Amino acid sequence: MNSLVDPWIPTLKDIQVAAYRIEGIVNRTPVMTSRSINDMTGGELYFKCENLQRVGAFKFRGATNAVLSLRDDEAVNGVATHSSGNHAQALALAARNRGIPAYIVMPKNSPKVKVEAVKSYGAQITFCEPTLEARESTLEKVVDHTGAHFVHPYDDPRIIAGQGTAALELIDEIDHLDIIMAPVGGGGLLSGTALAVKYVNKKTEVIAAEPLNADDAYRSFKSGKIIPSNNPDTIADGLKTSLGELNFGIIMKHVDDIVTVSEEGIVKAMRTIWERMKLIVEPSAAVPLGALLEGKLDVKGKKVGIILSGGNVDLDELPWRSNGFTTVMEQDFRY
Amino acid sequence: MNSLVDPWIPTLKDIQVAAYRIEGIVNRTPVMTSRSINDMTGGELYFKCENLQRVGAFKFRGATNAVLSLRDDEAVNGVATHSSGNHAQALALAARNRGIPAYIVMPKNSPKVKVEAVKSYGAQITFCEPTLEARESTLEKVVDHTGAHFVHPYDDPRIIAGQGTAALELIDEIDHLDIIMAPVGGGGLLSGTALAVKYVNKKTEVIAAEPLNADDAYRSFKSGKIIPSNNPDTIADGLKTSLGELNFGIIMKHVDDIVTVSEEGIVKAMRTIWERMKLIVEPSAAVPLGALLEGKLDVKGKKVGIILSGGNVDLDELPWRSNGFTTVMEQDFRY
Repeated sequence: MNSLVDPWIPTLKDIQVAAYRIEGIVNRTPVMTSRSINDMTGGELYFKCENLQRVGAFKFRGATNAVLSLRDDEAVNGVATHSSGNHAQALALAARNRGIPAYIVMPKNSPKVKVEAVKSYGAQITFCEPTLEARESTLEKVVDHTGAHFVHPYDDPRIIAGQGTAALELIDEIDHLDIIMAPVGGGGLLSGTALAVKYVNKKTEVIAAEPLNADDAYRSFKSGKIIPSNNPDTIADGLKTSLGELNFGIIMKHVDDIVTVSEEGIVKAMRTIWERMKLIVEPSAAVPLGALLEGKLDVKGKKVGIILSGGNVDLDELPWRSNGFTTVMEQDFRY
Repeated sequence: MNSLVDPWIPTLKDIQVAAYRIEGIVNRTPVMTSRSINDMTGGELYFKCENLQRVGAFKFRGATNAVLSLRDDEAVNGVATHSSGNHAQALALAARNRGIPAYIVMPKNSPKVKVEAVKSYGAQITFCEPTLEARESTLEKVVDHTGAHFVHPYDDPRIIAGQGTAALELIDEIDHLDIIMAPVGGGGLLSGTALAVKYVNKKTEVIAAEPLNADDAYRSFKSGKIIPSNNPDTIADGLKTSLGELNFGIIMKHVDDIVTVSEEGIVKAMRTIWERMKLIVEPSAAVPLGALLEGKLDVKGKKVGIILSGGNVDLDELPWRSNGFTTVMEQDFRY
């Protein structure tokens, strides 16, 4: 299989070119630390804040690299994708920045806030039934009709190279990391991270974290063949997708391990980051810290880079009780 | 009156010495920007992120400066204060860093989360009735009993000089600001900010923002005499205190204007910062942006520095509905 996918695997040069291409458009996000979280884990943790990236997630790196990689004749009819999440917003903004149309196929049950965000970047949305089949067939029609260039959310070397630039910045800023952690869904961020890290320093371990409730990457990694998820239920909505083929090949070769985290552990880690770091991260971004807090990986005395993948969360739907809830409950008790 | 307070007013040198003294203990916090908030206001806004300061608020600057200013014979019996908020935590940690005791008088209705935080820094807490009189008389007893050195939360030149270091960093990093904004409660942050800014560049306007529901600084500023608040009710819990005397003198001389904000405006600005900047700020920190979003100050085309004063907020008591609330309401409708 490797002989088939090898020509598609981004080189260090590809990732460096991506970094150069997206510079000034994509934020160089800060790296932050927390004394109290270091105390909790015993490690020296460096958080790469992709929640502070434009559109609120690392996805803008890959999307921008993909859109800017297109020749003029490829770009002229715009770009298209299907996504209910951060890739949709990222591609929409990347296309607007280049001045070309974006066509986004979204499941009709997508959160209104995400639909509005995609619209606000000027993309044209086509709604479909909320199944993978409907998404793919609707996208095919859109592409046939418009001549737009399809940009896959993760199973694409330009996307992988773009996502790898976050890790490149992190290892440029923090020397001698023992471990780099990233969450894994479709595998775009993880495969880009693994390539960037291993090209620069093979001694740095790359360890992925995944929700136990959507552990297709874990099972695929352990069994050596892709085992897709079947409609997984996890609060980490960005990690429900199953591994891409290109991503899987890279992950098998360059990732050292994958650990899993409970739903409770994800919420706990998310709240810890909110409280201790004053940073808003989405559940997916909290998955690696969740693994550490659940003791799935011992980082005592180690320097660990963690990619906080994004911060897009609906503030009206937080996974803990709040003012309104307390008030209503108190009223319940009172009457 | 000025002749009375003048000897107590920190000089530029005092603020610079404070900056030198607290360096390496206090975080040099990042300055962040938001394209979308710039679009909303028409200005070029630079947020100084004191919510990312240690203990989650600028208060750690002043407390650290005060504690490190003490001679050994002054410090030997520790420090004491009364506070239900961020100053209590800040002084507790500053004292622990110097290895001296901290005695904190807290109203017995203080939020449990704040009491726990103060305890976690090893301070000794004495509870009192929730009135200013009880706080002051209890503090007097504690000081008599322990010989500890009283550090006032804001009406103290060492505190003012320490708080002024945040603005000093901001103007060091961002050139040619037209305006600097800070919230005002007791006036420690505002008077320190005004001194630092005006010593360096008289052309930069210093404009304070205050909750309309706790507008003692506004009324004092406009009338030229201190008019204390009477038990004000505002979500910006850090800004309920009335102006200190030393602070008032500095503010009258160096602050260009004070604007007020509605409670709704504070919540809207807080949510805007959470959503657009992915930063957790407490209501008090959102007061200046609230004034801009309410049109109290026109910043079109201007470079504006805003001090985000802190990020200590109880995530179980957010001023908007959340998951729990929705669920309970839906159940109410269902049954």
